[in-house]
Amino acid sequence: MSFDLPTLDDVRDAAARIAPHARVTPVLRSDALDALAGAELFFKAEHLQRGGAFKFRGACNAVQALDAQQAARGVVTHSSGNHGLALALAAALRGIPAHIVVPEGAVRTKLEAIVQAGAVLHRCAPTQAAREATAAAIAAQTGATLVHPYADPRVIAGQGTLALELLAQTRGLDALLVPVGGGGLAAGVAIAAHGLEPRLELFAAEPAGADDAARSLACGRRVEDVVPDTRCDGLRALIGRPNLAALRAHRVRVITVEDAASDAAQRLIARHLKQVVELSSATVLAALLAARDTFAGRRIGVVLSGGNVDLPA
Amino acid sequence: MSFDLPTLDDVRDAAARIAPHARVTPVLRSDALDALAGAELFFKAEHLQRGGAFKFRGACNAVQALDAQQAARGVVTHSSGNHGLALALAAALRGIPAHIVVPEGAVRTKLEAIVQAGAVLHRCAPTQAAREATAAAIAAQTGATLVHPYADPRVIAGQGTLALELLAQTRGLDALLVPVGGGGLAAGVAIAAHGLEPRLELFAAEPAGADDAARSLACGRRVEDVVPDTRCDGLRALIGRPNLAALRAHRVRVITVEDAASDAAQRLIARHLKQVVELSSATVLAALLAARDTFAGRRIGVVLSGGNVDLPA
Repeated sequence: MSFDLPTLDDVRDAAARIAPHARVTPVLRSDALDALAGAELFFKAEHLQRGGAFKFRGACNAVQALDAQQAARGVVTHSSGNHGLALALAAALRGIPAHIVVPEGAVRTKLEAIVQAGAVLHRCAPTQAAREATAAAIAAQTGATLVHPYADPRVIAGQGTLALELLAQTRGLDALLVPVGGGGLAAGVAIAAHGLEPRLELFAAEPAGADDAARSLACGRRVEDVVPDTRCDGLRALIGRPNLAALRAHRVRVITVEDAASDAAQRLIARHLKQVVELSSATVLAALLAARDTFAGRRIGVVLSGGNVDLPA
Repeated sequence: MSFDLPTLDDVRDAAARIAPHARVTPVLRSDALDALAGAELFFKAEHLQRGGAFKFRGACNAVQALDAQQAARGVVTHSSGNHGLALALAAALRGIPAHIVVPEGAVRTKLEAIVQAGAVLHRCAPTQAAREATAAAIAAQTGATLVHPYADPRVIAGQGTLALELLAQTRGLDALLVPVGGGGLAAGVAIAAHGLEPRLELFAAEPAGADDAARSLACGRRVEDVVPDTRCDGLRALIGRPNLAALRAHRVRVITVEDAASDAAQRLIARHLKQVVELSSATVLAALLAARDTFAGRRIGVVLSGGNVDLPA
């Protein structure tokens, strides 16, 4: 499977395609967090996107871009949760079938929401190989179109739409910071943001226990021998090939953070920003606090990527 | 002490006065909560206002309206927390002293924030009489202007500004729903909303354990023998005289809710709206779910009033 990278125009097309379905999420501020970080922070609240994560943008773009014949056969993907839920919602909106392959160990809230959206759930072992093999088998059986969670150019273009929004909502940003797992968000944001404002500095936060993006950028080739060891369930995927190429082309700097730092950041986000976000999303604040000097005195756009945590009912 | 009620023009003046300082808070949506309530809900996120509550609007309006001589002597108030914090922040912004009388039993997070804002904290017994006597004594000693938490017309006008914003942000609303304690929010919203759209229906959610507003409206005179028994710490105050008059004039209907229902609503708000709100704020969703038939199929503007809860550090 080979993928190309989308362009700024593809991102703009995606924005038009998803506009009737996706939410324009707000940008949130906190005086207390600004003081802690020593910077002006503009939090793009994608955990308030439909499905509780930015993933709806990419999934919706991919589904809406299908022609009628493709659409009728449905879509399939593998996902630890948020992309699966997003694709289930996007498929339901278009009235087509969705097959979601979910590895064991995914978050209960996400699984329930996928089923509630009307998708067919397929479980598999929690390895990249098992995920891909199961999804490929379903695609072969049903004729459904595979919508890869982060390497698909329609998905990357969709994720990039949030950068268009953020730059329109908040003027004069110096840098953007997003979490990185498979790299769909990081790649889409990099392409869109640099397309509009080439002088923006770009950063990504990555769990230290799944630091393949940081290592891949450092050694100049895609590191594949990382066995993810992090509680950030949304960031366990290895970075995709096109995603890594985009990160390199756009000079995205990766900051790795320990889960304990993300735990503390998650509590700060609840306390000061009043937001319930996933541990994966809290990595960005952990990175801001870990690399305080890098960001000091500047205006930083920060993406809160998702809010699907298991809470007591 | 006698107070008049502000007019729509007073609310508009307040909006202009606080615009450089207050945040335009977002309106949040949740498909899941819409489905539960059987209505379209538009949550005005005042827990994301400066100081973590709508109270900043009224306090800021009162402080900015002082002339230079009054301002120099500072301000004083009594408050279970959010108004005190709001007044402390508003005074700090203008560089004037603030004295905050806080009853025993107030939320720790709020006390810490008041001190951090540079105000002088005065503790008193948790009764209305002790609060008012302590504040009056400080006003006499220092010459500070008393900014009553809910009966002051400048405060009511300030709270009303959120209704101007909400009606500009969300077209075609059928009804508004706010929590009611002392009634500053309810009165301000009623005056502003009916000033712009007389056909809007107005509702207020009140804890069953502090149902003086409901009883006062029912029996036609201000009921004063209610001893608050609710964990909604922001809604323990008796409704003010001018506030009650405004509720009556604008035919605000009060829905009472048990704390247990607000507990459940608070969890639903965390799960589906991803927001950390006070129990006092969750009363509105509890009311929506308790009086489902009243709201069914309609577009309801709902005010999330505050988010200052004690969370693990």
